[in-house]
Amino acid sequence: MRAVDVIIRKRDHHALSRQEIDAFVAGATGGGWSDYQAAALLMAIMLNGMTPEETSALTDAMVCSGKRVDLSDIPGVKVGKHSTGGVGDKVSIALAPIVAACGVVVPKMSGRGLGHTGGTLDKLESIPGFRVGLSIDEFKAVLRDLGTCMIGQTATLAPADKKLYALRDVTGTVDSLPLIASSIMSKKLAEGSDVVVLDVKCGNGAFMKDETHARALATAMVGIGNAAGVRTEAVITAMEAPLGHAVGNAMEIRECVETLTGQGPADVTDVVRRLASRMLVLAGAARDDAAAATLADDAIRSGRALERFRQVVARQGGDPRVIDDPSRLASVKTVHVLRAPRAGYVERMTAIAVGRASHALGAGRDQVGDAVDPAVGIMVRATTGDRVEAGQPLLEFHHRDGRRLDEALALCRDAWSLSEAPVARPPKLLGLVQ
Amino acid sequence: MRAVDVIIRKRDHHALSRQEIDAFVAGATGGGWSDYQAAALLMAIMLNGMTPEETSALTDAMVCSGKRVDLSDIPGVKVGKHSTGGVGDKVSIALAPIVAACGVVVPKMSGRGLGHTGGTLDKLESIPGFRVGLSIDEFKAVLRDLGTCMIGQTATLAPADKKLYALRDVTGTVDSLPLIASSIMSKKLAEGSDVVVLDVKCGNGAFMKDETHARALATAMVGIGNAAGVRTEAVITAMEAPLGHAVGNAMEIRECVETLTGQGPADVTDVVRRLASRMLVLAGAARDDAAAATLADDAIRSGRALERFRQVVARQGGDPRVIDDPSRLASVKTVHVLRAPRAGYVERMTAIAVGRASHALGAGRDQVGDAVDPAVGIMVRATTGDRVEAGQPLLEFHHRDGRRLDEALALCRDAWSLSEAPVARPPKLLGLVQ
Repeated sequence: MRAVDVIIRKRDHHALSRQEIDAFVAGATGGGWSDYQAAALLMAIMLNGMTPEETSALTDAMVCSGKRVDLSDIPGVKVGKHSTGGVGDKVSIALAPIVAACGVVVPKMSGRGLGHTGGTLDKLESIPGFRVGLSIDEFKAVLRDLGTCMIGQTATLAPADKKLYALRDVTGTVDSLPLIASSIMSKKLAEGSDVVVLDVKCGNGAFMKDETHARALATAMVGIGNAAGVRTEAVITAMEAPLGHAVGNAMEIRECVETLTGQGPADVTDVVRRLASRMLVLAGAARDDAAAATLADDAIRSGRALERFRQVVARQGGDPRVIDDPSRLASVKTVHVLRAPRAGYVERMTAIAVGRASHALGAGRDQVGDAVDPAVGIMVRATTGDRVEAGQPLLEFHHRDGRRLDEALALCRDAWSLSEAPVARPPKLLGLVQ
Repeated sequence: MRAVDVIIRKRDHHALSRQEIDAFVAGATGGGWSDYQAAALLMAIMLNGMTPEETSALTDAMVCSGKRVDLSDIPGVKVGKHSTGGVGDKVSIALAPIVAACGVVVPKMSGRGLGHTGGTLDKLESIPGFRVGLSIDEFKAVLRDLGTCMIGQTATLAPADKKLYALRDVTGTVDSLPLIASSIMSKKLAEGSDVVVLDVKCGNGAFMKDETHARALATAMVGIGNAAGVRTEAVITAMEAPLGHAVGNAMEIRECVETLTGQGPADVTDVVRRLASRMLVLAGAARDDAAAATLADDAIRSGRALERFRQVVARQGGDPRVIDDPSRLASVKTVHVLRAPRAGYVERMTAIAVGRASHALGAGRDQVGDAVDPAVGIMVRATTGDRVEAGQPLLEFHHRDGRRLDEALALCRDAWSLSEAPVARPPKLLGLVQ
């Protein structure tokens, strides 16, 4: 099968067969296809789309390009979780210990942050000593003992996705729904979970800017998971304003600990409870959402969830004392406070602007391999719907001796607005795709 | 200007600016753009199209990637001619000496055959000793002395087109109207003529299969030429059946000589006269088509056109004796004759089938650099509209000791059909685009 003939079929709006998709993925990663042929096909897919069957076949071919993690020797239902990423999205780190404390196994593999959204691994590494680079055997041992473990994606996990993503990044073919959906799901399916719950974020701070696109992506991913025999659901959540107050690595760990003690921000707690409920229901640990929410609330109230997090931190080499004494986490003394110029209601607190500003302060990276500063970031002191008085803090910039502070301030100049009339607090939970 | 941003603009249906197109052509040939980025943009152009302004800018950027031939020191109007290619298309070789004999300069640069259509250079090289690889100085000297010279395109002629065509060939991006039009016109404009007449072939044996597509390509190319200040016209001619009788290199030279003596097949003569007329009118050598046709007919009848061809052959190193004694041209003794199984009228004689069969016998090449056999080919003894009796020859297969004869016969099995009722001879001249 010649590469050019496969390209021409997609160019001419035909659906590709399983054999053609296998030839593409094998050829683009193992040889036989040049990068320019892969790029031409990616652009044809970007512009002409893919059917659900093609998208499933592409996902499966990428899963098969590497080694699927075998978790079958770990007892119980294994529940995967993935977020499409947002500003202040520390949900996984609080969620995994809660669900594990309810007796369900949560194998969590995450990526690093790039661009304006932070990465779960970067946040975890702000805990002194925390190791995200465990071997699969170590990962499974922690899972068996503690019910959850949070590590980085291994190199053998859907390597074709890694290769194709790198090519998409430089050829203008990132924003394709079937390519996004198959990329995410290939990694999730390769992680070996039995069921998967997705958090599809929607708004200016997310990859999907509106609910129509978020719902389409959720539907595509749920379809791929179910077609592969992995029961999959997606919760759609808002990402217009940052999630919670903290945007920055160590600052977000602190907020996770608060959430695990029941003292977290309302929006973070809402999203965590919602995802925990669907994970517990899908795993068969609770009959319905209400029963599942009770289980999750119990795990928090009883302190079992926090204790489980402490055990995981210790087991993965981190300093567990940070949980009782967050001052052991990295922080900066230099804080610039942006205050409300007048009294009013916060009409808008734009996630993307805050994310970019935190990134500029050093919390994110520009290039793969760059180091991030665990201490810096932004505290959102008032968000959409909040009442503020003149002089009350809106945003705190935790900066490293002024490093790129001016840039961060400029990025946030139009990030917020105040209204004289009261503003409704927008809902974070927008829907469920099953 | 980042490559990925240019790709994204075309992907999102924007027209590219002159600067963006220049960046692409310079980047794709000189560096800065990887081949996979060029391929992604080519696919986006293929699927989203280009405006006439973009197509002109792309053409000009490709012209500027090399050296435009400077013919300004040769007196008179220089008329370029190009055919989009067909089966049995030997028109240029007879046309150039006729127009030159009427006092108009015809600088003719051609390509080699690839696939089922033959190449002008391969046909000329079937004349023993004929050299197509003259330097530009030699080319200009012959032009000055004889008014025409027929050589291969030099490496400095629109090198970006060469690079991009090679990429298009393997990425499924050949069949794009703006890319085809700009590719052809970049080479034509770089050849330095003052006016250009195009022969856009249309039918199963041509690149453009129907009149709508042929007319669209003609319109695009005429637009590019005129926008570049080179007055350009296109004659649209039929390529459903092979042009003339001969399909094969030396066999076609023989037919050119017949045409130059006024004894050529009617269809070849019609197309040659039509193109000669438009070339003479555009060059200002004749007031109108009728006056131009008279000039061309005179050049043939007087023997001046044939004499001019003899001089060009001799000047380019060829053996001029082949003109009076065509038996000096390569030929084979082994001829297989396919005869009409019954009496009737030829309803169809399919150009593409005859072209592929001639190619199989050795007249064409599969890969750039392969040698062609000058002697082999097919003589079409009866074409669409002809009356044949049972047993009368339809096709003669001039083969090299049976080499791929079975394949050639198989390719021609359904190439023709007979009808009991008379069949009209279809017109070869389909229109003019100015």
